[in-house]
Amino acid sequence: MDKTFSSSNEAKPIRCKAAICRNAGEALVIEDIYVDPPQAYEVRIKILCTSLCHTDLSFWKMDFGPLSRFPRILGHEAVGVVESIGENVDGFKQGDVILPVFLPFCGDCRDCKSSKTNWCERYADDFVSNTRRYGMSSRFKDSSGEVIHHFFFVSSFSEYTVVDIAHLVKISPEIPVDKAALLSCGVSTGIGGAWKVANVEEGSTVAVFGLGAVGLAVAEGARLRRAAKIIGIDTNPDKFELGKKFGLTDFVNPTLCGEKKISEVIKEMTGGGVDYSFECVGVASLLTEAFISTRTGSGKTVMLGMEKHAAPISLGSFDLLSGRSICGSLFGGLKAKLDIPILLDHYLKKEINLDSFITHELKFQEINKAFDLLKEGKSLRCILWMDK
Amino acid sequence: MDKTFSSSNEAKPIRCKAAICRNAGEALVIEDIYVDPPQAYEVRIKILCTSLCHTDLSFWKMDFGPLSRFPRILGHEAVGVVESIGENVDGFKQGDVILPVFLPFCGDCRDCKSSKTNWCERYADDFVSNTRRYGMSSRFKDSSGEVIHHFFFVSSFSEYTVVDIAHLVKISPEIPVDKAALLSCGVSTGIGGAWKVANVEEGSTVAVFGLGAVGLAVAEGARLRRAAKIIGIDTNPDKFELGKKFGLTDFVNPTLCGEKKISEVIKEMTGGGVDYSFECVGVASLLTEAFISTRTGSGKTVMLGMEKHAAPISLGSFDLLSGRSICGSLFGGLKAKLDIPILLDHYLKKEINLDSFITHELKFQEINKAFDLLKEGKSLRCILWMDK
Repeated sequence: MDKTFSSSNEAKPIRCKAAICRNAGEALVIEDIYVDPPQAYEVRIKILCTSLCHTDLSFWKMDFGPLSRFPRILGHEAVGVVESIGENVDGFKQGDVILPVFLPFCGDCRDCKSSKTNWCERYADDFVSNTRRYGMSSRFKDSSGEVIHHFFFVSSFSEYTVVDIAHLVKISPEIPVDKAALLSCGVSTGIGGAWKVANVEEGSTVAVFGLGAVGLAVAEGARLRRAAKIIGIDTNPDKFELGKKFGLTDFVNPTLCGEKKISEVIKEMTGGGVDYSFECVGVASLLTEAFISTRTGSGKTVMLGMEKHAAPISLGSFDLLSGRSICGSLFGGLKAKLDIPILLDHYLKKEINLDSFITHELKFQEINKAFDLLKEGKSLRCILWMDK
Repeated sequence: MDKTFSSSNEAKPIRCKAAICRNAGEALVIEDIYVDPPQAYEVRIKILCTSLCHTDLSFWKMDFGPLSRFPRILGHEAVGVVESIGENVDGFKQGDVILPVFLPFCGDCRDCKSSKTNWCERYADDFVSNTRRYGMSSRFKDSSGEVIHHFFFVSSFSEYTVVDIAHLVKISPEIPVDKAALLSCGVSTGIGGAWKVANVEEGSTVAVFGLGAVGLAVAEGARLRRAAKIIGIDTNPDKFELGKKFGLTDFVNPTLCGEKKISEVIKEMTGGGVDYSFECVGVASLLTEAFISTRTGSGKTVMLGMEKHAAPISLGSFDLLSGRSICGSLFGGLKAKLDIPILLDHYLKKEINLDSFITHELKFQEINKAFDLLKEGKSLRCILWMDK
C-alpha cells in the first residue's frame, strides 16, 4: 500500500484497505481494494478518520429497494487529505484537508443560489448513482476485480476514496480532524435544524424526539440560541445525564408515560405545547406525536430522521389548519460549502460543544465494534482512526 | 321592528328578522327573533349587508359533532353599524361601521403580540361557545322564546346580532360596505395566504387547488406579488375565464388529466413543481396532491380549506424530508384588527380587485337563492342586502 503523495500515483489505482459490506446486515470485512484515479470533477482522498452515523446502519441493514446495493463501502462522515485531483477540479489541490458531505452543492443552479433551500437542483434526486457525474460507474474494485459500490457519494470506510467536488468542503488544517468529521453529517444536521430550519429563538421551548447525535445536536443548537426549555424524549434513561452537556433541561421517557401520549405529557410540561419539535429517529408515528406536541397557532415541527420504512406521515387536519407547520430537512438545511466553515468557526471560538459527541475512539480495523456500540445505543460518535 | 338608534333601545331586546336554520340541510326560514342587549365586551350590531361563504354551507349541512347545533343563525361575512354597546367596550361607539371576523384578537396575549401567528392564545381553541366570554349563553330567542344558537361568534344572517369586541374591526364609513364585507372571511383568507403565510415572491410559480372565492383570492394575492405562473385547478371549466380576472395564467381540469395525477401535470408544466401550492377545498387527498405538486427542496404548501370530514393528512416521508414544508392557516394568517385596514387601503388605492368577487346581489329575504347559487358553483360571492 502506497500512502505517499507522489505524482507517480496520480494516474494509477491505489491498493489499500477498506471495510466492505458484502451482504445486508453482515459484519464488514476489511479487505484489500483498488481505488481508481479520480475522473474529471473528482478528487481522490486519503481518509484520516471517519465516524459512524445511524444512516450507515440503516443502509447496512437495508435489504430491499433501489438504494440497497452490495458489495458496498459505507461511511459518509469523515475528514481526509486530497491525494490527487482529476481534470476540471478548481479549488482543491493535493494536500488540502477536506470534509466530504453526502448532499451536493454545485453552486450554480437556482437552488444553490437561493437562501431558501440546501437542495441542489442540478443534482437533485440522485441518491441512486455511485458517482455524481458518471452514474453507476465505480472507482472501487476488490482484489478479484469485482466492482464495489459507493455509498452516498462518500464511502469513507476505506483508506482511500474518490469523491466528486460537489460534495467537498475544504477546511483549515489547524482544526482537529476528529471534531471536524462530526460536522460531516449528524451534528451539522442537528445544529442546522435548530438554527436554520426552525430558527429557534431566545426564551422558546423545544422538544427533541430521539437523543442520538442528531437529537443532541439539536439540543446544542437550541442551547446556543438560549431556548428556555429543551425537552429530550428517549427510551434510554441514560440519555438525560448525557443530554445535559448539550443543554437538555427536561426529559421524557415514553416507556414511563403510562396511558398518556408523549404529546400530552409535553403539553402539560409547557402549558400547551412547545414552540419547536424535532423528530430525529425516523418513525412516522413519532413525527405525528412531535407535530401535535407543538403549540396551536404557531408550532413548528422539523423532520430530521429518515423514515425507516418510507411510511407516510399522518397529521390531524385541524391541528394543521389552526396554524402549525411542518418541514423536513436533509443536512439541517445547511449548504455544506457555505455553512460548515461557519460552524467550525463557532467551534474554534469554543461556542459549540463538539467534544462531548465523541464517546469512543477505535482503530479502523475495529469498525465492527463501532457498529455494535451504535446499535446498542452506547456511543454517540465513535471516531475510527485510519492510521492508528 | 325598530331600526332607529335611540337610547331607549339600548337596554332592551330588539325584535327583527333573521334567517334561522332549524335543521341541518333544510332551507333557512325568515322569522322574527329577539336580540338581547350586548353584555360587557359586546356590541349589538345592525347588519348592513352579509355574504355567504362555503363555511356557512359546511355548517349548514353538518349533522354530527359538537359544532353541529340547531336552531342556529349562520353567517359570518358582513358589515354593520354599532347600535349599542355593553359595559367595558373601548374603541367602539354607536354609529361606528364595523366588520366582524370569526377569529378573535384580544391584543394582549403572547400570540396576539407575536408576529408569528394570528392565533389568540387567550381565546384559543374555543369554537364551541355561542358567545366569546359567556360560553353557551345566547343573545337570540325566537318569538316563542326558544334559544337560537350563534355561529362562529358572528351570526350575520340577522338584521341585528351581538358580537364580542375581540371579533370586531372598525372601518372607515367611506368604504363601500359590500366590498368591505368580502374581507370578513374568504377573500382575506386567500390574500393573506399568499402574502403572509406563503410570502409569494416575484417570478415564483403558484398552484391553487379549488377556485372558489378563497382560491381566486390566493390568485389575486399572487398576481399582486408578480408571480410568474399562477395555475388554477378546478373541475368547473368556467373557472378559468373567471380566474383570469384575478391573475390566473394556467388551468388544470382534473377530470381531463386521464391517468395522470394532478401533481404530475403540474410538475410537467413547471419543470419540476411549483414554488407554492394552496389547498382551498378542504379534501385531504387534494392536500396530498398539492404537497407533492411543489418543488423538491423548497416547495411550500398552504392549507386553507377546512377538511370536510376531519380526515388526517397524509404526506410522503421522503417528499417531506427532502425539504418541502406545509402549514395550515385560518384567516390567511391575518390578524383582523391589524391587517384588514391594510387590505382596505390597498382596495382604496385600486390595487386589489375586490369588485369581481361579487357575482350576485340579492335581498336578504332571498337568502335561500344565495345558498343555491353557491352550492351550484354559480356564484363567488352573493351580497345580501338587509334593507333592500
